[in-house]
Amino acid sequence: MSILVVGSVALDRIETPFGKVDRTLGGAATYFAAAASLFHPVRLVAVIGDDFPEDRLEFLRRRGVDLGGLEREPGESFFWAGRYDYDLNSRDTLETRLGVFADFDPAIPASFRDSEWVFLANIDPDLQLQVLDQVASPGFVACDTMNYWIEGKRDSLVELLGRVDCLMINDSEARELSGDYNLTRAARWIRERGPRIVVVKKGEHGALLFTETHTFFAPGYPLEEVFDPTGAGDAFAGGFLGWLAYTGSVDEDELRRAMIFGSATGSLVCERMGLDRLVDLEVDEVYGRVREFRELTAFDHPVAPVHG
Amino acid sequence: MSILVVGSVALDRIETPFGKVDRTLGGAATYFAAAASLFHPVRLVAVIGDDFPEDRLEFLRRRGVDLGGLEREPGESFFWAGRYDYDLNSRDTLETRLGVFADFDPAIPASFRDSEWVFLANIDPDLQLQVLDQVASPGFVACDTMNYWIEGKRDSLVELLGRVDCLMINDSEARELSGDYNLTRAARWIRERGPRIVVVKKGEHGALLFTETHTFFAPGYPLEEVFDPTGAGDAFAGGFLGWLAYTGSVDEDELRRAMIFGSATGSLVCERMGLDRLVDLEVDEVYGRVREFRELTAFDHPVAPVHG
Repeated sequence: MSILVVGSVALDRIETPFGKVDRTLGGAATYFAAAASLFHPVRLVAVIGDDFPEDRLEFLRRRGVDLGGLEREPGESFFWAGRYDYDLNSRDTLETRLGVFADFDPAIPASFRDSEWVFLANIDPDLQLQVLDQVASPGFVACDTMNYWIEGKRDSLVELLGRVDCLMINDSEARELSGDYNLTRAARWIRERGPRIVVVKKGEHGALLFTETHTFFAPGYPLEEVFDPTGAGDAFAGGFLGWLAYTGSVDEDELRRAMIFGSATGSLVCERMGLDRLVDLEVDEVYGRVREFRELTAFDHPVAPVHG
Repeated sequence: MSILVVGSVALDRIETPFGKVDRTLGGAATYFAAAASLFHPVRLVAVIGDDFPEDRLEFLRRRGVDLGGLEREPGESFFWAGRYDYDLNSRDTLETRLGVFADFDPAIPASFRDSEWVFLANIDPDLQLQVLDQVASPGFVACDTMNYWIEGKRDSLVELLGRVDCLMINDSEARELSGDYNLTRAARWIRERGPRIVVVKKGEHGALLFTETHTFFAPGYPLEEVFDPTGAGDAFAGGFLGWLAYTGSVDEDELRRAMIFGSATGSLVCERMGLDRLVDLEVDEVYGRVREFRELTAFDHPVAPVHG
């Protein structure tokens, strides 16, 4: 049973202190699909303009991504330009041109409607709801969002929360959505509105998983060279959901592993500009990084001395 | 073999959105001793003024802290006042009055000079060097510092690095000291100047341990209620060094455990105002928190599928 992803496929201009690329392959759905397809077949629904160099998506097809839901419309493709400072933690958006994405009205092809796993990348929550209406009976739905929708489409977003299993969200967005600075309480606020799983992404500081019964923390991998964090969050989501779909389980053990596979994939993406690292990435490299994560946090738990 | 700690014993005024305390027990050496003495005997060297309510230190004595190096001088005790915002991550120092601490010239009592474990809390690096000159042959020396000394006493600090086994430092200070934003490279820069172990404290985002052969990460514990983070870093250092001294080892396994015992102790301190949580803290509670840390990060590492 495939993973359905709906979101943006874009062209990006990225400037970091270490390099600059223009009209490089970008978009949340692209990063997600590139990561998730390392583990499981993916079906992609998105819209591109007639300026889009479609051959750039060939690597996705080779990796088992079904592009049958990729619409091509007259006009310009979604374009985003951003610049990172030396610390690579804060970024300025220099330019956003929605192009054909402004009228994106996702139509799920009939052959995609039986998808078991669904990832609603960051788009208008009304469109995310529309997508869900078109999927027959998804077993597991995860979604992302952003401050723009939290502020402008709060009601739709809260309605969406009631229909998803998992919300994946940045720390600042979790705080804004819940109105609570404390992430543990913010996650509970969100869970009370629907999702039984909340993943809070903290960038270089790792990610937290909250469920009713446990909390799990995946650290940020201490990379010696970070070139470009663009797309790391979406690659995280791809590794996370890709792993769950591969195992066919969302029990506690697999959720913990999924957090680490997501972190591993997300950290690898940062090693090169844009999506470059994902294009040739082998799944063995992800397993290798997962082993490094294990080394990073493993300790033997000592037994408390018995008092006399 | 006892742990020797040299540093400040102070009175603090702390304001957080959740409460306010005035002339409460504070100081880096106090927090360190209160934490480390849960695991191992401690010897404390510090100076207090004639205004200091010495009975407040009685709990340390009961817990095996030798206060034989506590000098009482005419004048005011070191006083610090700080205020935390709602996010509890950034704090403003409202007032610092050094008092008798301005002329602190640590004299290590003869009976303390055979100390095996030494923690040089955050004081003038020239004084830290002076302390080392007075200890016969310490087996393990750790030190802390701050931006004030990095900027004002860089040469002394670099000399000190050549004489310690372990530097414990905040992330922002590690960056300032090394001139490198990347913490992995910053830690290597520091290790190349002496300490074979570097611990970088990142507050609520956890702490990293760097040695020649491995990197270990201890997360910040996701507390639902944080009342006051004052002293958490020094309590971390106390738990860290206390654990190592208790086991008598600094091998990789014990260093990893020490990071978790430090994190556990540091996180517990944040649950009440000032030092309150440490006064009655039982070592079993720390072991309990260590178990929670294990739950927080444990995952089963899957084996990569074998390709045909």
